[in-house]
Amino acid sequence: MSSEPYRLTATEVLQKFKNGDLTVVEYATSLLDHIDERQPIVKAWEYIDRAKVLQQARDLDKVPKEQRGPLHGVGIAVKDVIYTKGMPTQHNSPIYKDDQVELDAGSVIMLRAAGALILGKTRTTEFAATVNGPATTNPHDSGRTPGGSSSGSGAAVADFQAPISLGTQTGGSTIRPGSFNGVYAMKPTWNAITREGQKIYSLILDTLGLYTRSVDDLKLLADVFGLKDDQPPQRPSSGVKGLKFAVLKTMVWDQVGPGTRDAMSKGAQLLTFHGADVKEIEFPTEFAKLPAWHTVILKSDGRPSFRPEYMVGKDKLDVSLVEHVEEAHGYSRKAYTEAFDGVAALRPKWDAIAQEYDAVIVPSVPDEAPKGIESTGSAAFNSMWTALHIPVINVPGFQGEHGMPIGLSLVAPRYHDQALLEVAKAVGEVWEKEGGWTSKL
Amino acid sequence: MSSEPYRLTATEVLQKFKNGDLTVVEYATSLLDHIDERQPIVKAWEYIDRAKVLQQARDLDKVPKEQRGPLHGVGIAVKDVIYTKGMPTQHNSPIYKDDQVELDAGSVIMLRAAGALILGKTRTTEFAATVNGPATTNPHDSGRTPGGSSSGSGAAVADFQAPISLGTQTGGSTIRPGSFNGVYAMKPTWNAITREGQKIYSLILDTLGLYTRSVDDLKLLADVFGLKDDQPPQRPSSGVKGLKFAVLKTMVWDQVGPGTRDAMSKGAQLLTFHGADVKEIEFPTEFAKLPAWHTVILKSDGRPSFRPEYMVGKDKLDVSLVEHVEEAHGYSRKAYTEAFDGVAALRPKWDAIAQEYDAVIVPSVPDEAPKGIESTGSAAFNSMWTALHIPVINVPGFQGEHGMPIGLSLVAPRYHDQALLEVAKAVGEVWEKEGGWTSKL
Repeated sequence: MSSEPYRLTATEVLQKFKNGDLTVVEYATSLLDHIDERQPIVKAWEYIDRAKVLQQARDLDKVPKEQRGPLHGVGIAVKDVIYTKGMPTQHNSPIYKDDQVELDAGSVIMLRAAGALILGKTRTTEFAATVNGPATTNPHDSGRTPGGSSSGSGAAVADFQAPISLGTQTGGSTIRPGSFNGVYAMKPTWNAITREGQKIYSLILDTLGLYTRSVDDLKLLADVFGLKDDQPPQRPSSGVKGLKFAVLKTMVWDQVGPGTRDAMSKGAQLLTFHGADVKEIEFPTEFAKLPAWHTVILKSDGRPSFRPEYMVGKDKLDVSLVEHVEEAHGYSRKAYTEAFDGVAALRPKWDAIAQEYDAVIVPSVPDEAPKGIESTGSAAFNSMWTALHIPVINVPGFQGEHGMPIGLSLVAPRYHDQALLEVAKAVGEVWEKEGGWTSKL
Repeated sequence: MSSEPYRLTATEVLQKFKNGDLTVVEYATSLLDHIDERQPIVKAWEYIDRAKVLQQARDLDKVPKEQRGPLHGVGIAVKDVIYTKGMPTQHNSPIYKDDQVELDAGSVIMLRAAGALILGKTRTTEFAATVNGPATTNPHDSGRTPGGSSSGSGAAVADFQAPISLGTQTGGSTIRPGSFNGVYAMKPTWNAITREGQKIYSLILDTLGLYTRSVDDLKLLADVFGLKDDQPPQRPSSGVKGLKFAVLKTMVWDQVGPGTRDAMSKGAQLLTFHGADVKEIEFPTEFAKLPAWHTVILKSDGRPSFRPEYMVGKDKLDVSLVEHVEEAHGYSRKAYTEAFDGVAALRPKWDAIAQEYDAVIVPSVPDEAPKGIESTGSAAFNSMWTALHIPVINVPGFQGEHGMPIGLSLVAPRYHDQALLEVAKAVGEVWEKEGGWTSKL
């Protein structure tokens, strides 16, 4: 089973292409066959066209070896709030049903320039802005949510339907599905990768998100997208040994369940056992308002963002979005600028705290994926990091009471994306092996 | 001549439609004939299709009176970095030559929902991100620049080729052409109007811009776009009498020329004469770094924004944009976050200063439009306000040594857009009548 091409990571499949062991058409066929088999259960895709994928694959096979890009032939799934030429972009909104815009998002332009095989569009909650789950199920248990709003992107990568997918995050839309599906998920520093061609919910919060099943694949993407720190990242020479970590339970720790509580404890113990220096820290008190400020910004920004759709089809918008536009929340502009400026003032303070460590370990989610697919779950543990603009990587490896995956997040100062990837690589090797969870897919 | 429909403001033409004195087709024909006559000289348009405009006009004439929107039939020109269905969007870039994306920007969706007649696309500097003028000339003197980057939008409104146009501003791309062309120009509070579907240069700076020949027309737009202050704006009951103004020459006053120096002096005198309270203020010293910080943010943000185009067509990008992507500027991420956070910390401080006044009067430009159309001029007096996210309105009325128009900017705290419009109305009535400049067009 492990010999099936669809199971390969991007890094692995690139090696096979390089060696001449596999063609892009063979690889695409393997992915498409697996998708055909799994789509009725997982429902990760909003749109995928077999003939078009195979045509792209044939074209890629014709590219001379010396002209091939760093993602030559790698299958990539794209969240359906990100524009792609030749495919509809529907935002899970009846207003945009079958709408096909002949525009590639900036991220998609870069992926295509790197030779990627754009497979299709993955399901999202409405405009990536509600917690109403699309039909997508968790591939590890179809009775549970895969999380959201990047529901299909997280599920597709976990279920070997694509080695890489693009998501987005405004609250916890990338990291939450990462944890629920047991895959690597990265929210880079805000605006370190262009958001051109990605539907807006909150301009100051929205960030492109990345899913893979390995850190090496995240690194491939980081290089294609041009993520760059001020200092070239140090590769840890002997795993986590000697690395400095902080553990931060955050001001919303009262929302944690047994799965994440155990994972936080076990995660720290494993790193200590392998020679890392781990200490617990707390937020300074001035960070207490972060969750509330995130909410004020998010809902207030929903007003300008969804006013166009409100004007053309109010009756076709989810009630929560109508409420944003109509300001049912009651936040004044004064409350908004206080939140906007308050968060802005905390960003350099967080950077100063985090730069003392190789990474800070924080929860990704309250617990394993809850039952039911109606709600995509809570972003309580994610929204503060989104607001702070910092890089976040969900590292899988743990499990909850029902055997579902749980990940923990590594966070760092802004523009330490490449350094954090190196740390995630070392941490992932420990947690994936010894954290207690292994995918049965 | 004044009876020609093309010369009407939006407010005036709406009244004619309402009274049944004019059809949208008659109005559109008048505009199109005038455009045909003037395009060879002014070159404001990148794209306009007579047949398509007339088809839209015929459709609008069929809309029953009771279903007509607040901008029913009003002709609007759109800067060619803003997506419009049924028209190409080319960004003045060979990479996007003849590129037609079937997407309406959020602003355009709202305009169409309000019944506007979208005329076509106006010329811009490359991606609204360089100072290399397009072919557009200043309608008051074809040997001079209309400013940029919203070159065509500013020129078209001044030249009666459209009563309203959309521009954008990242440095001074809306206000500068406003002053150079002698029209009203407004840069609303950052993100108060969605930027969806508007090409990105700098996410934290880019703002939609508005051009009109009257404040009433700006107010029409403000309402359609949903600009809203915390307090309903007070309409001054007797002109500027009793209003409180500050005059602020800014830290770049050494760049001012005789035209703006005289306008600043005359503008203040006129308001004082008409009963306003005018005092001169200075920036606190901590604002000194604003211009430098704006530059760091702008150039640094050019890297993620233009990396996609760089990857597909580096040779087709202006050298300044290539330099952004390649970081020829040499700014570190640390310098960037310092600038980003530094500006953020000044925003509430500016709001606190400005809320003491009905408006603060500041220069719009160093002087009247310079000779030549190669360069679009300096944004030195605009970039600080763009960075502070505040509303800015250019009010025309003054003139330079060569008889070219000069405007002054009124600025306010964030989210005081509607209040500032009321003040601009009262100020404009004085400056337009007594400032010394009248359009000869």
